[in-house]
Amino acid sequence: MTDKSKFHLGEHEIPKAWYNIQPDLPYPQSPPLHPGTLEPVTPDFLSVLFPMNLIMQEVSPERYIEIPEPVRDIYKLWRPTPLIRAIQLEKALDTPAHIYFKNESVSPVGSHKPNTAVAQAFYNKEAGTKALTTETGAGQWGSAIAMGCNFFGIDLEVYMVKISFQQKPYRRVLMENFGAQVFASPTDRTEYGRGVLKKDPQNSGSLGMAISEAVEVAATSGGAKRYALGSVLNHVLMHQTVIGEEALKQMEMAGEYPDVVIGCVGGGSNFAGLAFPFVRENITNGRKTRIIAVEPLACPSMTKGMYAYDYGDSAKMAPVVKMYTLGHGFIPPGIHAGGLRYHGMSPLVSGLYANKLIEAVAVHQVETFKAAKQFLQAEGSTPAPETSHAIRVVINEALKAKKEGKKKVIIFNFSGHGLLDLAAYDVFNHGGLEDYEYPAEAVAEAEKDLPKVPNGSKA
Amino acid sequence: MTDKSKFHLGEHEIPKAWYNIQPDLPYPQSPPLHPGTLEPVTPDFLSVLFPMNLIMQEVSPERYIEIPEPVRDIYKLWRPTPLIRAIQLEKALDTPAHIYFKNESVSPVGSHKPNTAVAQAFYNKEAGTKALTTETGAGQWGSAIAMGCNFFGIDLEVYMVKISFQQKPYRRVLMENFGAQVFASPTDRTEYGRGVLKKDPQNSGSLGMAISEAVEVAATSGGAKRYALGSVLNHVLMHQTVIGEEALKQMEMAGEYPDVVIGCVGGGSNFAGLAFPFVRENITNGRKTRIIAVEPLACPSMTKGMYAYDYGDSAKMAPVVKMYTLGHGFIPPGIHAGGLRYHGMSPLVSGLYANKLIEAVAVHQVETFKAAKQFLQAEGSTPAPETSHAIRVVINEALKAKKEGKKKVIIFNFSGHGLLDLAAYDVFNHGGLEDYEYPAEAVAEAEKDLPKVPNGSKA
Repeated sequence: MTDKSKFHLGEHEIPKAWYNIQPDLPYPQSPPLHPGTLEPVTPDFLSVLFPMNLIMQEVSPERYIEIPEPVRDIYKLWRPTPLIRAIQLEKALDTPAHIYFKNESVSPVGSHKPNTAVAQAFYNKEAGTKALTTETGAGQWGSAIAMGCNFFGIDLEVYMVKISFQQKPYRRVLMENFGAQVFASPTDRTEYGRGVLKKDPQNSGSLGMAISEAVEVAATSGGAKRYALGSVLNHVLMHQTVIGEEALKQMEMAGEYPDVVIGCVGGGSNFAGLAFPFVRENITNGRKTRIIAVEPLACPSMTKGMYAYDYGDSAKMAPVVKMYTLGHGFIPPGIHAGGLRYHGMSPLVSGLYANKLIEAVAVHQVETFKAAKQFLQAEGSTPAPETSHAIRVVINEALKAKKEGKKKVIIFNFSGHGLLDLAAYDVFNHGGLEDYEYPAEAVAEAEKDLPKVPNGSKA
Repeated sequence: MTDKSKFHLGEHEIPKAWYNIQPDLPYPQSPPLHPGTLEPVTPDFLSVLFPMNLIMQEVSPERYIEIPEPVRDIYKLWRPTPLIRAIQLEKALDTPAHIYFKNESVSPVGSHKPNTAVAQAFYNKEAGTKALTTETGAGQWGSAIAMGCNFFGIDLEVYMVKISFQQKPYRRVLMENFGAQVFASPTDRTEYGRGVLKKDPQNSGSLGMAISEAVEVAATSGGAKRYALGSVLNHVLMHQTVIGEEALKQMEMAGEYPDVVIGCVGGGSNFAGLAFPFVRENITNGRKTRIIAVEPLACPSMTKGMYAYDYGDSAKMAPVVKMYTLGHGFIPPGIHAGGLRYHGMSPLVSGLYANKLIEAVAVHQVETFKAAKQFLQAEGSTPAPETSHAIRVVINEALKAKKEGKKKVIIFNFSGHGLLDLAAYDVFNHGGLEDYEYPAEAVAEAEKDLPKVPNGSKA
């Protein structure tokens, strides 16, 4: 008898390789630039922050990169993740659509982030890294890399945005349980942080500041510490493709193929993880799946931003990359989907969107919480606020299918659970949630601040 | 190729029946008594609180009771739960023991509680119940029954111990997300609560008070509301046996049979859920598995208590049952394993212990958190403080196996995750956790307060 709502793979079916989408892209890539010279970066520049094995992955021309056995061994703690058909949600919506989700919330820290965290910790260990630095907002990435470092015996310093450090102690504790040191950023541990605190001792921090602190600590450590990032970069997105590779096999078990693939986007990693293997099938196997990235209207980098070279961080220390951006000076409003509050978008996802290989749509946060409540009252499980952006569009698509009387197969990435975000639901339940709309005129202002790249590059 | 660390059953392998241990017990049962008359209760008395279909399950002589299809349909949202072999923990302990755990934390609310919550909601719906009342301490039971009531369209009032209501808002939000009304007990909604508040307006509540409020509301509703309990009763424990029935099949997939079965005990439901089917195999199939219940030294009902008839609640409104008890007036100290803070023990588990069919051991909370940290640093997942009691004894048994150079197969119930209990880990990490030991001399004092049952019954 075949199961109808849960599709499990065996642990021997964990993918043996990550999928690198770069060689399959039917358009040229724009190289990352040095933030000072605005010339293409050299591996030497990057090697101050990253070990050479990861830098090689970042620029690899290989379609598949083998997943090392020790990484697969750790993946086995929670992978393969189940593919679930949301039958109760389908019933509640009375839709002919079939709704599947890839449940990445089953990882020990509750999100997809460990897929790359474990890999980054492994490669750093191989390269002799003794200590890593990183930043975190609400703490999903921080807790994942803390777990990764714990498994491979690497020290970790996490610069956590001060307001989150104060308001979300649970994810701090999760990091500390894995032996990480967590600091409320801005700190007095860096020149940059001291400068900020001097001007404003009560500064409550931002992701941009935390990145700058983590980068400064690594860059000035004389090689003793390296830096890790949880999204945006090519190798980070590539590590997430185990999600989509598993999903392809599981959809086959279910006897269906998706008409629509949906994921939320902040830096782009959970979306890419599910979507890239389906993009490959579109490009190389003639599939015609619609692939939709969902972003917040409060931080709509693709739907309202510029496609241009911009700095990855506010302090202009990170490489300059070609991406959709709202400007490196943009500080997104305090929506509860902390993981979607990034001024830019990963270059790989940006390129796909610019070349019309994927779609993008932006939604308001109140409607995402409405969708989340509908989901949890049907399926039981509480989605993270980020994931709820995907769910909003899933429900919209399912209702459209109902209106059109068409069967439609939808799959989305359940990137994380919201059990550590229940405070946000409380605000929503009591009517205290606000919508923010990015002011369209702000882009023109931000454009003036873009780095002046020789030969220009704004799309 | 066979998996080595994860054993999944298909959803068609969700048990078709619950296992009722009562007919297999090789000793007579002591009937529950009316709290006023101290005579055996009649179904009529119980029917003020419970629907007749559940009362019939409570006293059923049938070994197996069929699980209704609508309950199995909801179970499919997370069941069958995986059996996991904790290979990384085995490596960390360098033990020849094989350690398996049944992962009940994968339910939408993170614990085993929905196994009975969904069943109770279903049977109440069948019986025409429009509204339920219940109590909850930290909120694991409350969130499970809130989800159950949500699925079957039943209104729910939860009386949540005030100190938990204030300190643990996340589980309150989880309940509210499912549409439940949650009140900080003592409330002014009951005569009992008003009495307490009159004497002490700042009273921070206790589980005993919250039970009394929930029972009073149901009992005085003129049949409009009924009451639900998350542990202790026969039918509640029976609903949990899906855990052990699945585990038996999964151990077969793993090609092993346990030498030791371990679970933590508060009221007894998660322990019974895993253990009872293994007790059956001991009784009826000549197996010789050791079955160990683990309780806190701060609330050691079996290892330090009396085996006697006692009241189930402090207000003497609930039936009087024969059980291990520290006395109905005992208020357990504020250990973080809130689910283990009950003065008594379910009559079924008590009977097994009194008749030497299971063992019991009590442990201190600091050593349980040490075990939890060892577990999560090896396996990634964060155990609930209750579950950590089981893990403490699992590790002790694994280390004993190492010392003796013996292979030993251990299985335990991973009854819940600790993601909503991270504040307790924070206290532990900062050295602020205390041990409490139940004062042995307190039993003699509590004995004087036992109900004076005709013909006596103290073991």
